[in-house]
Amino acid sequence: VTVSELSERALVHLVQQRLSAPPRWMVVGIGDDAAVIEPERNRLQAITVDAIVDGVHFDRRFTPPDAIGHRALAVNLSDLAAMGAEPRYALISMALPADLLLADFEAIVDGLVRLSSSYHVSTVGGNVTRTPGPLMIDVTAAGVVKRRSVLTRSGARPGDVVFVTGTIGGAAAGLEMLRGGVPEAAPACVERYLRPSARVRAGLLIGRNRAASSCVDLSDGLADGVARIAEASGVGIVLDRTALPIEPSARTWWESRGDAVVDRAISGGDDYELLLTVRPRLLRHLEAVSRHGGVALTRIGVCTPGRSLVLRSPDGAEAPVPAGFTHFR
Amino acid sequence: VTVSELSERALVHLVQQRLSAPPRWMVVGIGDDAAVIEPERNRLQAITVDAIVDGVHFDRRFTPPDAIGHRALAVNLSDLAAMGAEPRYALISMALPADLLLADFEAIVDGLVRLSSSYHVSTVGGNVTRTPGPLMIDVTAAGVVKRRSVLTRSGARPGDVVFVTGTIGGAAAGLEMLRGGVPEAAPACVERYLRPSARVRAGLLIGRNRAASSCVDLSDGLADGVARIAEASGVGIVLDRTALPIEPSARTWWESRGDAVVDRAISGGDDYELLLTVRPRLLRHLEAVSRHGGVALTRIGVCTPGRSLVLRSPDGAEAPVPAGFTHFR
Repeated sequence: VTVSELSERALVHLVQQRLSAPPRWMVVGIGDDAAVIEPERNRLQAITVDAIVDGVHFDRRFTPPDAIGHRALAVNLSDLAAMGAEPRYALISMALPADLLLADFEAIVDGLVRLSSSYHVSTVGGNVTRTPGPLMIDVTAAGVVKRRSVLTRSGARPGDVVFVTGTIGGAAAGLEMLRGGVPEAAPACVERYLRPSARVRAGLLIGRNRAASSCVDLSDGLADGVARIAEASGVGIVLDRTALPIEPSARTWWESRGDAVVDRAISGGDDYELLLTVRPRLLRHLEAVSRHGGVALTRIGVCTPGRSLVLRSPDGAEAPVPAGFTHFR
Repeated sequence: VTVSELSERALVHLVQQRLSAPPRWMVVGIGDDAAVIEPERNRLQAITVDAIVDGVHFDRRFTPPDAIGHRALAVNLSDLAAMGAEPRYALISMALPADLLLADFEAIVDGLVRLSSSYHVSTVGGNVTRTPGPLMIDVTAAGVVKRRSVLTRSGARPGDVVFVTGTIGGAAAGLEMLRGGVPEAAPACVERYLRPSARVRAGLLIGRNRAASSCVDLSDGLADGVARIAEASGVGIVLDRTALPIEPSARTWWESRGDAVVDRAISGGDDYELLLTVRPRLLRHLEAVSRHGGVALTRIGVCTPGRSLVLRSPDGAEAPVPAGFTHFR
């Protein structure tokens, strides 16, 4: 059975059945012309939209449907985390090819709903349309943040210390393994690509503790994230080549293939870690993040007065940071 | 020059250049991981998402690019109007085929920005991705509404009077003319299809004056709208066949072709008028809407205790309301 055998209304109904009870602040939920929400007092609202398209951001041939749903929401939760916001609700817009199996549609929704439940994110609205093209899921996600906790890209100053959460390179290596048909090479990397974690708790604590002068998420890789902060803040960044927390099984995979490990780890996208800068005198503010953020924090470099992005080796040799990952061309 | 020759960043920059100055409540705008907004005090937030896909909701062969942008936003403004909400901001997510001309991309954005400016709607965020499939624009739009002014679909009771704004059938006739290659047959109908007006002002006044017991927008036609209110409110509806405000040039067009005028006008989508029900004792609340809503209000029927949807002729003959327009199958 394919989705083309159901009406739009019946598909929306299948989604609705999977949602948990609406929260009290949801005045009007799915099923009317728009959702109506009561904003939280004394909080700002953070809101973002991101789309994933079959053949561009994932590939149905090797991405299980629940992982498609998971990824569609995770990329947005990661954006909210990078603003220091606590996620609250999402709107899900799906364009479905007529040959999509109904079971796959349901599994996509299950993946999405499972992730949203684990973060207490309510689906307040959405849209389903058919498309003569590829499967596409567009998620709008909103969260709340105190004014003093908002994290932007633009506050870094020369001398600020650069940190990254978790490990990098795992998702890029996992994608290579999926494409090469060897997902068993390092299941942790593959899982990292298929069902990324958004660093929601860490982002919240970074914002609350006013620890960071800037923050960005690594959707397009570390090299891209570094360039974004440098551009928005008007600083340069020197990264310590040996300090980078490269996912161990990704390192092993690239070494076994004779690939340039650091370049791959830095350029690869889809890590969804947070990159942040911290004033030296505020480093102690990171303690609570390290202790309760649910993810490691690694010091990987420093901001500089120039505008150059540099990778420094222990022997003092310097190389430019390779260009980041770009989805469009 | 096609969009594939620019980076995602360059395309986003083209959009940004076209936007007017950000409003004071926009704490962080386009260019960070998410937008940050200060919610309006003592107001609820209405939010909706809707997508338009080439080959499904429009056809690039006969829809000028500025009209594509206009329609993408108008469908959402119409949803907000049907909730009684005043539109405030939008997020624009676009999936672009590689062969889209850059000039067409710019014209799409211009159409979108022109309509948003005329309603003081700020674009606070968005996303651009390439797609191997058709052009798709997904707009999330949000507005504000007082709790006592929220309009839903579910408050109609037997005896309530049914009204519709403006005229119906024009967009459906216009689409037929475009498809048939005779847009000169009735330019008003064609314009109605290409660049629909959302009844924002009327929706606001209907909400503020607490005139309506239910309201819905006619994105999928009058027959569909009547069914939505009847279903959500648990009523039947009798429509007065001769009272329907059918667009005169659409009537002429269908008559000249020997088509069933009323059936066409009722079943055709894309009108984006508002359908509402009003308690008989509150009819005077509609005066302000008629006077200042910028659009005519026509009494077209009444809600009944049953659940049937009926079209009544002056001679008393009754026929079931034909099924509405459905986008999916």
